[in-house]
Amino acid sequence: MLKTFATASRAARTSPRSATAFRMATIRLLSQLVEPKEPSVTTEIPGPESKKVLSELAKLQDARAAQLVGDYTQSVGNYIVDADGNKLLDMYCQIASIPVGYNNEALLKAAKTDEMAITLANRPAMGVLEEAFMAVKPKGMEMIFTSSHGSDANEIAFKAAFMHYARKKRGARGFNAQELESVMENQAPGAPDLSILSFGSSFHGRQFGSLSATRSKALHKLDIPAFKWPKAPFPQLRYPLDKYEAENAAEEARCIEETEQILKTNASPIAAVIVEPIQSEGGDRHASPRFFQELRRITAENDVLLIVDEVQTGCAATGTFWAHEQWNLQTPPDMVTFSKKMQAAGFYHTRALVPDQAYRNFNTWMGDPSRALIAKAIGLVQQVQEVGKYLKGHLEPLAVRYPRVIKNVRGAGTFLAFDCPTAELRAELLELMKNEGVNMGGSGETSVRFRPMLTLTKAHVNVFLTRFESVLNKLYKKHWPQ
Amino acid sequence: MLKTFATASRAARTSPRSATAFRMATIRLLSQLVEPKEPSVTTEIPGPESKKVLSELAKLQDARAAQLVGDYTQSVGNYIVDADGNKLLDMYCQIASIPVGYNNEALLKAAKTDEMAITLANRPAMGVLEEAFMAVKPKGMEMIFTSSHGSDANEIAFKAAFMHYARKKRGARGFNAQELESVMENQAPGAPDLSILSFGSSFHGRQFGSLSATRSKALHKLDIPAFKWPKAPFPQLRYPLDKYEAENAAEEARCIEETEQILKTNASPIAAVIVEPIQSEGGDRHASPRFFQELRRITAENDVLLIVDEVQTGCAATGTFWAHEQWNLQTPPDMVTFSKKMQAAGFYHTRALVPDQAYRNFNTWMGDPSRALIAKAIGLVQQVQEVGKYLKGHLEPLAVRYPRVIKNVRGAGTFLAFDCPTAELRAELLELMKNEGVNMGGSGETSVRFRPMLTLTKAHVNVFLTRFESVLNKLYKKHWPQ
Repeated sequence: MLKTFATASRAARTSPRSATAFRMATIRLLSQLVEPKEPSVTTEIPGPESKKVLSELAKLQDARAAQLVGDYTQSVGNYIVDADGNKLLDMYCQIASIPVGYNNEALLKAAKTDEMAITLANRPAMGVLEEAFMAVKPKGMEMIFTSSHGSDANEIAFKAAFMHYARKKRGARGFNAQELESVMENQAPGAPDLSILSFGSSFHGRQFGSLSATRSKALHKLDIPAFKWPKAPFPQLRYPLDKYEAENAAEEARCIEETEQILKTNASPIAAVIVEPIQSEGGDRHASPRFFQELRRITAENDVLLIVDEVQTGCAATGTFWAHEQWNLQTPPDMVTFSKKMQAAGFYHTRALVPDQAYRNFNTWMGDPSRALIAKAIGLVQQVQEVGKYLKGHLEPLAVRYPRVIKNVRGAGTFLAFDCPTAELRAELLELMKNEGVNMGGSGETSVRFRPMLTLTKAHVNVFLTRFESVLNKLYKKHWPQ
Repeated sequence: MLKTFATASRAARTSPRSATAFRMATIRLLSQLVEPKEPSVTTEIPGPESKKVLSELAKLQDARAAQLVGDYTQSVGNYIVDADGNKLLDMYCQIASIPVGYNNEALLKAAKTDEMAITLANRPAMGVLEEAFMAVKPKGMEMIFTSSHGSDANEIAFKAAFMHYARKKRGARGFNAQELESVMENQAPGAPDLSILSFGSSFHGRQFGSLSATRSKALHKLDIPAFKWPKAPFPQLRYPLDKYEAENAAEEARCIEETEQILKTNASPIAAVIVEPIQSEGGDRHASPRFFQELRRITAENDVLLIVDEVQTGCAATGTFWAHEQWNLQTPPDMVTFSKKMQAAGFYHTRALVPDQAYRNFNTWMGDPSRALIAKAIGLVQQVQEVGKYLKGHLEPLAVRYPRVIKNVRGAGTFLAFDCPTAELRAELLELMKNEGVNMGGSGETSVRFRPMLTLTKAHVNVFLTRFESVLNKLYKKHWPQ
């Protein structure tokens, strides 16, 4: 028996037996679930049932990071329902990982095909070619390498970059005895001292390689040994962009110059630069297409690979399928990594990057659900653009009316954000919004980020705006009464 | 349309349209598939259809490591069917990853429940407590942390070990400013120079941390930067064990002594030792329970954690659910990692290892299939012991009759192996076996390993033995004619 399902459903409040019966009935009714018209919150969050689940979980797992106990037999579309039956409009979506809404009918159907069952029942490395992913390959990319999750995707991209670097340097000769021996001792030349350059505030994952490239939060990195890889400055733009055009251009030029300096002079050679189109965990930090064009120029000129980390930005949320499409690059990046909304992970790459010796390619393969999802995501690009424009168009005047709470509205598609003046005020805002029935999340020190489903509509935005204004008024009344 | 299914089914030889129809019909018939009585091979391996699939795959992925193109709509029980319709008794099972046979009816059924569909349709981090895994927790373990795959499982165990080490050292105080600043530059003291000690010939994964602990093959490690973590010698036992008892005891004592020396003197402090109960990729290298008891003793005495990597040995194949149960430790290990047959990954740990700050726990959750599988695996322990004893009981006399091919028969349960005198002879043996309809695999330089399903029966062993003897005779006739 799966505990969460039982305890999370409201029937569980009465008895375990009726909880089971209720769960089964609930599941059968799943595809008939109807999205609520508006949020409803009847307990504090987390409420008594959620707290009960969390404390049971804590006996066997470290559950302190969990806050909202989702009931996935009740959540539907843009609404997450918690264990206490509270219904929240979800503008956060498990950190941008839910593409087309909870219990999406098409995905539920796809997940129940025989093909999917075969995959699950024979789960290991099937080496199946996934055409679904090739249908949305970024311009200039020719091949794909799949992996398990976003962190993994970046790590295998790093490995490909290091192998590519070593291959160029080695030329036609094979591995020599010194390399073969030293590598077993984790020493150069077999295990060479090479680097990946990443940017300040970036997030690329939590494993040992990807964590060495991550620069967003000390807490992710503390006490873990790291490679001494270099860090470049990411532009700190000022908003509104049109007012600070000259300053921002100068800031970006400075960052490019410093980055190129590191590429040329870093003690250990740099095999690749990795960059996010929008630094997400780092606080929704943006740079202009020109910055990325320049980054492509200097990496190419210095013979360093460019990896674009689209783990969070990929799959339509920014209004184009890949965020980096908006840069209009003349030469494509060398690799593009993906995960989250794509419901699978890996990287696209150019043909030049195939390693010189075969290695086993272990695939995560999601078959039918992947295909159903990608088809849906492609169809939603236009809607994301329109709804994003609508939402941003309302956030901007709110920033003028409530300048003590909302600063620096920014973003593309529905991948939007603004800053609060302090972390404390942000926490207060998010808490109030939750109790108004809207689930939102932060990024960086003081930013609030929007990461809704691709299926968000203007009607959802209106629901959000009503609650948001009410919360803004409450904050003003409390902190700045006239 | 999923290419492999289409091209892999025999109907695909005629036209793509009939292939699709055939595929759909095939899938419906899946649960009626009957395990063949014996192998049948009608083409070379890989045959023409398999070659076609491989060459299509090569256009989009690096497919050079693939050899056998499995048709998972036709494979059943202990038999893998390839794209050319060849039926092979599978003694290798995707490197020990298939627990209870291809297209197992119970797993197929479990994979088609509504609950599974909900999980797949709402795929992200659900934070669901998985009781299935707690039902088989190793003695002394109290909690579980799940991850995506085996390599990941070891890496998060390493991270837990480093955090534990730093926490002990730091005592009651919080992070200081110097730690918080230095860690963002990947420098000590925030990113301390700490180590994981692993053994020569070990395999623990291919990501940056786990790869630094892996010592099995240069090709896995070449050109990838590594942490300068230390390596200890793993005993090289001589067979038969009863003949070389004194020598083997001395060899193990030597390894323990050298290991302890490293624990005491390594330049960077060692947070944990990781060890496999049977070194699998490294060539099915075994050590005695006494060796592991001693290893537990010296790690405890030197205040270093002990991680047992049961990624390949876990889940009943060695005749106990966990291989390390056979060591009869007085004090349990600190962590036990798992993956593969378990169809999920992660590590078990003692309560002492919960980190002092919460971190997000991203679960791989396989719901019903996990529960179905673990229940089945528990029920098969006895059979694995009996069939393993039967197989080993036949391999030993064959080693006496064919000493030029079979050496050092060893192993526990059906997790068995033997050595060939040379890599060339092993390759010849494996090739001949494949063409006789038995899929087998190597490990290390010259070993042949058995990694059958848990559902292997004596009847399957008899099928294997007939073919094996025939191949042994062929090899003798060719290389050592009288």
